[in-house]
Amino acid sequence: MDDELRKVRKCIKGNQVKATRLLQQLVQEGSVRGKEAAAQAIIIEKCRELGLQLDIWEIGDKNLTDHPAYCSDRKDYTGNPNVVGILRGTGNGKSLILNGHIDVVPENNLAEWKHDPFSGFIQEGKLYGRGSTDMKGGTVALLLALEAIINTEIKLKGDIIFQSVIEEESGGAGTLAAVLRGYRADGAIIPEPTNLKIFPKQQGSMWFRVTVKGRSAHGGTRYEGVNAIEKGIVVINQLSELEKVRNSRVVDPLYENIPIPVPINIGKIHSGDWPSSVPDLCIIEGRIGVAPDEDMSKVQAELEHALQELGNKDSWFKDHPTTVEWYGGRWIPGDLESDHPLLSTLESSYLDVTGTSPVIEASPWGTDGGVLSKIGDIPVVVFGPGVTEVAHDANEYIVLEDLFTSADIIATTILHWCEVSSED
Amino acid sequence: MDDELRKVRKCIKGNQVKATRLLQQLVQEGSVRGKEAAAQAIIIEKCRELGLQLDIWEIGDKNLTDHPAYCSDRKDYTGNPNVVGILRGTGNGKSLILNGHIDVVPENNLAEWKHDPFSGFIQEGKLYGRGSTDMKGGTVALLLALEAIINTEIKLKGDIIFQSVIEEESGGAGTLAAVLRGYRADGAIIPEPTNLKIFPKQQGSMWFRVTVKGRSAHGGTRYEGVNAIEKGIVVINQLSELEKVRNSRVVDPLYENIPIPVPINIGKIHSGDWPSSVPDLCIIEGRIGVAPDEDMSKVQAELEHALQELGNKDSWFKDHPTTVEWYGGRWIPGDLESDHPLLSTLESSYLDVTGTSPVIEASPWGTDGGVLSKIGDIPVVVFGPGVTEVAHDANEYIVLEDLFTSADIIATTILHWCEVSSED
Repeated sequence: MDDELRKVRKCIKGNQVKATRLLQQLVQEGSVRGKEAAAQAIIIEKCRELGLQLDIWEIGDKNLTDHPAYCSDRKDYTGNPNVVGILRGTGNGKSLILNGHIDVVPENNLAEWKHDPFSGFIQEGKLYGRGSTDMKGGTVALLLALEAIINTEIKLKGDIIFQSVIEEESGGAGTLAAVLRGYRADGAIIPEPTNLKIFPKQQGSMWFRVTVKGRSAHGGTRYEGVNAIEKGIVVINQLSELEKVRNSRVVDPLYENIPIPVPINIGKIHSGDWPSSVPDLCIIEGRIGVAPDEDMSKVQAELEHALQELGNKDSWFKDHPTTVEWYGGRWIPGDLESDHPLLSTLESSYLDVTGTSPVIEASPWGTDGGVLSKIGDIPVVVFGPGVTEVAHDANEYIVLEDLFTSADIIATTILHWCEVSSED
Repeated sequence: MDDELRKVRKCIKGNQVKATRLLQQLVQEGSVRGKEAAAQAIIIEKCRELGLQLDIWEIGDKNLTDHPAYCSDRKDYTGNPNVVGILRGTGNGKSLILNGHIDVVPENNLAEWKHDPFSGFIQEGKLYGRGSTDMKGGTVALLLALEAIINTEIKLKGDIIFQSVIEEESGGAGTLAAVLRGYRADGAIIPEPTNLKIFPKQQGSMWFRVTVKGRSAHGGTRYEGVNAIEKGIVVINQLSELEKVRNSRVVDPLYENIPIPVPINIGKIHSGDWPSSVPDLCIIEGRIGVAPDEDMSKVQAELEHALQELGNKDSWFKDHPTTVEWYGGRWIPGDLESDHPLLSTLESSYLDVTGTSPVIEASPWGTDGGVLSKIGDIPVVVFGPGVTEVAHDANEYIVLEDLFTSADIIATTILHWCEVSSED
C-alpha cells in the first residue's frame, strides 16, 4: 500500500497546476442558481477525460417533486443537469460517493469585492471568487484525487461514485434526485469548506418567511398608522431571544467551540414602497439551524410558537398575528455515529498525510449530507479544504495548498476504504 | 353679493351627482406616477366643457431641470402633461390660483383594501379609492365651484388659474414647472385633505436614503459576519431619537394639537437577497418633516450629523460610516403671515357657509404650497375636504358632503377675493 500511496501523492503533486486551472475555470463560470450549465459542462469534460461512466440528467421528475423531503421553489431545471461519473471497482470492495455541489450563492454587494467575483484571481497562494471555497475547490480536490488514482493505474475493489449536483444552496434537490435515481454507497464524503476539519455531524436548517402587518398612513401623520418596519424589528428581537433559548440547550461536545451552534439568521427584510408612506407590510426571511438530534417539524413548531407569543408582549400582534411560511431551502441534519469506520478511515488518512490529528466537530451549516444519510441511508462525513469563514462572503477564497492536502487525504481514504485490487 | 352667493350654492347643489360621477371617473383612472395621462384627459375634457382657456404641456425642459428647487429621479414625462385652465376676469380684481395634483401614491398592500383601490366604490356617503381624498376630491371641489360660477354667468374681475399638476407626491416638479412657465397670482388655494381645516403654514419635507454596511457571511456561521439589518435597526433607533429632539423644539401654537409636528418616517427598508447569508448592505429610505420656519439645508445637516454620531455608540460605524443621499421628493415648507387677507377671506367664507369658525393649524405634510410661496412668491392657503388620516392609507375615502361643503366655501372665497364684475 505504501507504494501506491507514494505514487498517487506524486501524481497529485504533478497535477497541481492543472487542478488550479480547472478551479479557475469553474469559478469563472458563475454557476448561481439556474445558471449551472456552463460549470457542469467543464465537469463533464473532465469526467470524460478521466474515463468515468457518465450519467447526466435534468432533475425535476414527479418522483422527485412528490418526495416529502423535496422543497424547492424552482420551476425549471431545463439545461442545468446533475452529473454523476462512476469509476467501477473490480468488486468485493466498499463503495464511496464523492459529492460536491456546483451551484453557488449570489455575489451580493459587488462593491465589497476587491476583484470581480468570478475572476478566479490568484494571489499569494489563494484563489479568489464566488464558489472557490463553497465548494468548487472541494470538487476539484475530489477530481484531483480520482485523477491520480486513475493515472497511476491503480484498480479499486469498490466503486467510486463522483457526483456534481445542483441545488445544494437551495435545499438539496440535486442530491435528493441522485438518491432517488438509485445511487447508494457504503459511505460518502462531501468536501464542503470545513477548514480541513472533519464533521461527522451536520447542522440542518430551514428557510422561513415571516409576514408582519402594519397599517399604512401618510408619513407626515405617521402617528395615524402602524409602521410594519417597527413591528418587524419586534419580530427580529423575538427571533433573537428564541436563538438564545435554543442554543442554551445544545450540549453536544462537538459544538463546544462553535459560538452559536444553531443560529437563526435574518437574511432578508423588505418593507415599503414609498418613502413618505407608513408601510403596512414587512417581509422577513431567514434561516434557522437544526441540531443533529432535532426533529425538523418540532423546530418549526417552536419558531411558530415564539411568534404567537408576541401578542403577549405587544397587543398589536394579538389582532394582527404574523404568518410564517416554510419555503425554499431545507437541509436535513446529519448524524454519523462516532465509532463509524468511515470516520476512523478518514481520521487515520489525515494523520498519515499531515502528521497531526484532525479536529472533529459538528458543522455549523446544513449540507447535502442530511439527504444522503437520512434519505439514502448512507454514512456521511463532511470534510473539505475551503475556508468556512468566507463561504457566502465577499472576497471568498480558497488556500490552494489546503486543496492539494485535502486531495492527498481523500485519495488516501479512497485507497483504504475501497481497497486496492490486485486484478489487472 | 348675497344674490350671487345664493345662485352659486344652488348650482353647486344641483351638480352634486355629476361631481360625484366625475370624482369616481378620476379615481378609476389610477394615476400613479408615470400614469397620469388618462386622469388628466378627464380634467381636460371638463375644462373644455367649462370653456376655460387651456394650457397643456409636458414638463421637463432644461429651465425646469436646472432649477435649484427641482428634485426628481423621473426621466420621462412624455404623454403625462400638466394642465392649466384659465377663467379670465374682466380686470382690476385679485387673481387666484386653484391648484390640485392629479398623481396618487401607490395602493400598497392590496389585501388591506376592502374594495379595488381604483373602484370609486360609494357607500354611506363616502367615496372610496386611492386618490379620493389625496386629492382628486379636492380638485373636483375646485371644478364644482368654478362650474357654478360659470353656469350662473357671474363675471369675476380677477383671473382664476385652475391647475391640475403631476408630481406633487414626488416633490412638486409639476407645480414648479407651472411657476416657471410664468403662472403667478395674488393668492392660491390648494385643496389637499385637511379635514376642512385651514393650513396657512405647511410642513416641508425631504426624502433620504441611508446606506448601511455590514459584512456578509454564511448564515450558519453568522457570528463571522456583521448583519446589515441589525446595523440598520441601530440607524432606525438613532433617527427615532433625532425625531424626538427635533419635535421638542417646535413651539408654534398652530402645531399644538399635532402629536408629532415634524415626523421622521421610515418608509422603506431593503436588505439581503439570500435567507441563509448574512446581508452586507441595508438600504433605508424615509421622509423627514421640515418645520415652516426651518431651512432645508440645516435639516439635512442635522440628520447627517446624527448618523455621524453613531460611531460613538457602536464602533462598527466608526470604520463603516453610513452614507446619506437626498433624493427624489423634496417639499419646501410654506409660511403665510397670520394677518394675510387671503386667510381672512377664506375664514369668513367658512363661517358664512358653515356657521362655525374654522380650525386653523399647520399642515403635518408638505404640499405644493411651498413651491408656490417660496419660488412663486404667491400667498398660499391649504384647505380641502379630504380626510387627513386616510391619505396614503388602504381604504382611502372622502366624505362627499365635505366635498360639497368645501366647494361652497371655495366658491364664496372666489367671489370675495376676485370680486364680481358688473360688466356684461
